[in-house]
Amino acid sequence: MTETGRIVFTPIGIVRSPFISTDGMPIQPVGAADVTAEVVIDEAFAEGLADLDGFSHILLVYVFHRAGPAKLSVVPFLDTVARGVFATRAPTRPNPIGLSLTRLIGRSGNILRIAGVDILDETPVLDIKPYIPALDAAGDVRVGWLEGKTETSFCRVADARFRSGGG
Amino acid sequence: MTETGRIVFTPIGIVRSPFISTDGMPIQPVGAADVTAEVVIDEAFAEGLADLDGFSHILLVYVFHRAGPAKLSVVPFLDTVARGVFATRAPTRPNPIGLSLTRLIGRSGNILRIAGVDILDETPVLDIKPYIPALDAAGDVRVGWLEGKTETSFCRVADARFRSGGG
Repeated sequence: MTETGRIVFTPIGIVRSPFISTDGMPIQPVGAADVTAEVVIDEAFAEGLADLDGFSHILLVYVFHRAGPAKLSVVPFLDTVARGVFATRAPTRPNPIGLSLTRLIGRSGNILRIAGVDILDETPVLDIKPYIPALDAAGDVRVGWLEGKTETSFCRVADARFRSGGG
Repeated sequence: MTETGRIVFTPIGIVRSPFISTDGMPIQPVGAADVTAEVVIDEAFAEGLADLDGFSHILLVYVFHRAGPAKLSVVPFLDTVARGVFATRAPTRPNPIGLSLTRLIGRSGNILRIAGVDILDETPVLDIKPYIPALDAAGDVRVGWLEGKTETSFCRVADARFRSGGG
């Protein structure tokens, strides 16, 4: 896995979603509660999906495969000033890893049906984890520059600013 | 980043924690609320940390660098029967990616001080994301095989079962 400081992963599958472009795609899953998609896991890994359908929500770890080059400062969709990229969810990260909490509707063999999706079609999937509130949810939270921006703001749709080849 | 289907990442930094072995390490952050550690980010990426200290919690994406070979079925710490690895948080995953929600105590230049840590010393860090409840927390959750196991169960400590070279 490690090659002189590099980390090498192999995708375990792919997302099949209605979004073939970031244009008009919800920025984050809460803007896409009704959108469903499939996660097609390679048969070689299907055994690892056993017991997953007992969970109502899963965390998808994937590659922002269409992201442009990494930028350490970005202007996020919900802001007008530059922020450190690690204080944002922008895809133009040094390692373009995406993380989305989605609802798991069901499993049919090696295919997961999910809802609440903000993920592009053909996105390579690296890992799937069960969502466990005892581990994955925190109380008494401060959200920095996002403070005061309402949750519904996440329903805004994306534009081209983080796209490969985009502006 | 992509090499014939492979995904290549470069760590952005390293965790400095009191845990030099999985023996006695909390299984997950909630078992380690009082444990503090540092995330030392390479100077080359320090600019990306701007604005992060406005957030009370961060998501660390890292490599389980001491995990043994991948197994598609594992017996989790909190269970006695084998489960699909993607329905667990075991480190022996096809792509050994770890994800931990931790409290951010503060930042000093390229060093983050964090609390609530279940991460081994020298763990390579791949990404840091701000924790945003509107995106990262769900209600009305089912937790499958974990149902009925209390949250305090996560305070159990790890043994050697997932360690490289371990049993």
